[in-house]
Amino acid sequence: MDQTHDPSLRTWVESARGDTDFPIQNLPLGVFRRRAEDDEPAAVGIAIGEHIVDVTACHDEGRFTGPAETAAAACAAAPLNGLMALGREYRAELRRQVSALLAEDSPGWRANHRLGDRFLVPMAEAEMLLPARIGDYTDFYASIHHATNVGSMFRPENPLLPNYKWVPIGYHGRASSIVPSGTPVRRPRGQIKPQGADLPMFAPSRWLDYEMEVGCFVGPGNPQGTPVPMGQAESHIVGLCLVNDWSARDVQSWEYQPLGPFLAKNFATTISPWLVTLEALEPFRIPAAPRPDGDPAPLPYLTDEANLQRGGVDLTVDVYLASAEMRARDIPPVRLSRGRVGDLYWTFAQMLAHHTSGGCNMQPGDLFASGTVSGPTRDARGCLLELTWRGTEPIPLPTGESRAFLEDGDEVIMRGRCERDGAATIGFGECRGVVEPA
Amino acid sequence: MDQTHDPSLRTWVESARGDTDFPIQNLPLGVFRRRAEDDEPAAVGIAIGEHIVDVTACHDEGRFTGPAETAAAACAAAPLNGLMALGREYRAELRRQVSALLAEDSPGWRANHRLGDRFLVPMAEAEMLLPARIGDYTDFYASIHHATNVGSMFRPENPLLPNYKWVPIGYHGRASSIVPSGTPVRRPRGQIKPQGADLPMFAPSRWLDYEMEVGCFVGPGNPQGTPVPMGQAESHIVGLCLVNDWSARDVQSWEYQPLGPFLAKNFATTISPWLVTLEALEPFRIPAAPRPDGDPAPLPYLTDEANLQRGGVDLTVDVYLASAEMRARDIPPVRLSRGRVGDLYWTFAQMLAHHTSGGCNMQPGDLFASGTVSGPTRDARGCLLELTWRGTEPIPLPTGESRAFLEDGDEVIMRGRCERDGAATIGFGECRGVVEPA
Repeated sequence: MDQTHDPSLRTWVESARGDTDFPIQNLPLGVFRRRAEDDEPAAVGIAIGEHIVDVTACHDEGRFTGPAETAAAACAAAPLNGLMALGREYRAELRRQVSALLAEDSPGWRANHRLGDRFLVPMAEAEMLLPARIGDYTDFYASIHHATNVGSMFRPENPLLPNYKWVPIGYHGRASSIVPSGTPVRRPRGQIKPQGADLPMFAPSRWLDYEMEVGCFVGPGNPQGTPVPMGQAESHIVGLCLVNDWSARDVQSWEYQPLGPFLAKNFATTISPWLVTLEALEPFRIPAAPRPDGDPAPLPYLTDEANLQRGGVDLTVDVYLASAEMRARDIPPVRLSRGRVGDLYWTFAQMLAHHTSGGCNMQPGDLFASGTVSGPTRDARGCLLELTWRGTEPIPLPTGESRAFLEDGDEVIMRGRCERDGAATIGFGECRGVVEPA
Repeated sequence: MDQTHDPSLRTWVESARGDTDFPIQNLPLGVFRRRAEDDEPAAVGIAIGEHIVDVTACHDEGRFTGPAETAAAACAAAPLNGLMALGREYRAELRRQVSALLAEDSPGWRANHRLGDRFLVPMAEAEMLLPARIGDYTDFYASIHHATNVGSMFRPENPLLPNYKWVPIGYHGRASSIVPSGTPVRRPRGQIKPQGADLPMFAPSRWLDYEMEVGCFVGPGNPQGTPVPMGQAESHIVGLCLVNDWSARDVQSWEYQPLGPFLAKNFATTISPWLVTLEALEPFRIPAAPRPDGDPAPLPYLTDEANLQRGGVDLTVDVYLASAEMRARDIPPVRLSRGRVGDLYWTFAQMLAHHTSGGCNMQPGDLFASGTVSGPTRDARGCLLELTWRGTEPIPLPTGESRAFLEDGDEVIMRGRCERDGAATIGFGECRGVVEPA
């Protein structure tokens, strides 16, 4: 573990010295625009406390050397695709030099205590954009608890299909409708066929849901026809973000056979804007979730000793809900669930290796998501479909309201956090969205 | 019908005066690069006979005025996304002015019979590229004959699912692996579970197939949350191309439940490089395929009188196969099937309106394909899965070879043609690909 993770490391940036998702040990990557000026260009930033390091401003001051300078130069054309295309060593060195620059005892800061005025932007003055031009978006189905729960509802006789324990099931999603946290999401209309109805109708979805997922941004990528082997898969992963895979369950249940979800998912997908790098996640790597006795071992193309040992990520993800009435009455959001990414049946490396195993090319800035992160217990169910068991067990809210599915005005807020003895806690920031009427 | 379709219109470009897919009445759009020079930039071109009009070269000579000049200026940055983002009137006017320039009696040509030397590039000296940066790719399932045939094989008890006649079924495909005609396609490896096997294995696909489809490029597009109504859908369609949706059937049958096809399709999709515009297709518009008695009428959001009258396209698509041995022995490709796009159960306008009906945003350069174009007869089945009925009825080749599915070295060639009394015949060029070993 390099010095950038040292929990005793302190920064001179005051907003990053208390309880924060973004201490100096995190340094996630994002793309921002200063709010003040409309025509301000997008720029690559690194979060520190309640501030953003303007990478290009630092670069223009000549603060970086060697591979970090190459990495910073690749940030000049935001979004992050250029940086993602570089190997991990470039990003790691940029991280080391930014960490050194922000450290309390840095020579630059000793020379000039107002250093930050030149390249720190308060988050309150910035608008966060998508971190990358996302060429292709893929959604997996890597939580066996989610797959089993959903399967029980839709196919009670056959909840977990025979391929599940062999194939990291996934499907292609819609890239154009991915939006950054804070973007309102309009309730979709669609074809629905309510239970007992003879005919389908076209109407606003009544079963609007969220799905709590974790997204993985792809780095260099592979040429078409040349799979990425398991042993190299992590070198193609830049880092993780939170994903809300909004879902219209009534549309989904009518449309999804035989080719999978389509309009039920493609109206919007929200992601958190800060990309927490694999470098920052180093202290939180854990073994891949052990497979229950009797489950088959993954096929050789999905097997790698290092991945078994450290393929998991000890990341906790929470979902909160605030109805319009709760917000009007200043009632804080209520937590609906808490999931553990370490519970996933497949690791991110397995998902990426599988994705490319037939020759599909992945490109810098591509995104793939885990699928709903659910756990074995009720409070670890990562979507309302599971939490309310298809709407049959509504959730009471502190206002006296209740929720089977999302209502107009509801805000869904996701948060993620890595905590571990001996390491500084790091967070993912928020992934938020308010439901607007159809 | 404007004068650009006049079948008596002749061009001074000699290669376009005989039997050709690209007479002056066609003028499809594409993106090419001169072969001679490696660093030659991509450029927008318009096919005429065996030549390509370099649109930017014409523009630089000041050959265009008004909206055509705007359209040509948008072509300066190839590929075609900039032109696609403009409204149809811009493309129509560019077409009119290019037609006038190429017409036998054009003033420019009368003044200088060597006009073509300045902006015509022989196709033999050009490499064709993808026409657009394809942000998102969607594949529909619009042939009821294909859906019924495939359903009969995979779900004999339930061939056509209850949603089929209501929902234009589609799924998101992989944009990164779309390649232009002529690109070799490597046979994918993948998880397969042969009939009777206890366990799946990872191996080269044994059931490699093609699918004959028609693709539709999207023009201006819509903002997220704002559907395109049926009456406006065609104004968002630029034109059509041929699509080979290569499919690994054995991978597909093991992986596709419950979220649809994934690795079975995403290793490669080949498209023909010339985009035949809706303007060129004007004379070949026909009523939408009549629905059999007893079938439900489409829901109102998929209904439009003009679309019922002229939503179809009278386009015939052929698939040919040439094995390596056939090519070595100079045996011409054999035709495997002939399909009619007019047979599709859903029109392109219905597919686009449905796609956006929940708010999904489409962007200039997005591509959606029809799904396999099959007809009611055996010789109109658009893939080997159907033609050989899952491999049980192999097709004899003139060499004495036979094919249940594709073998290494096989070349699949697709051609499309619009013919009608009173109109000049136009073609789509070719969509070709050779299968390379895994």
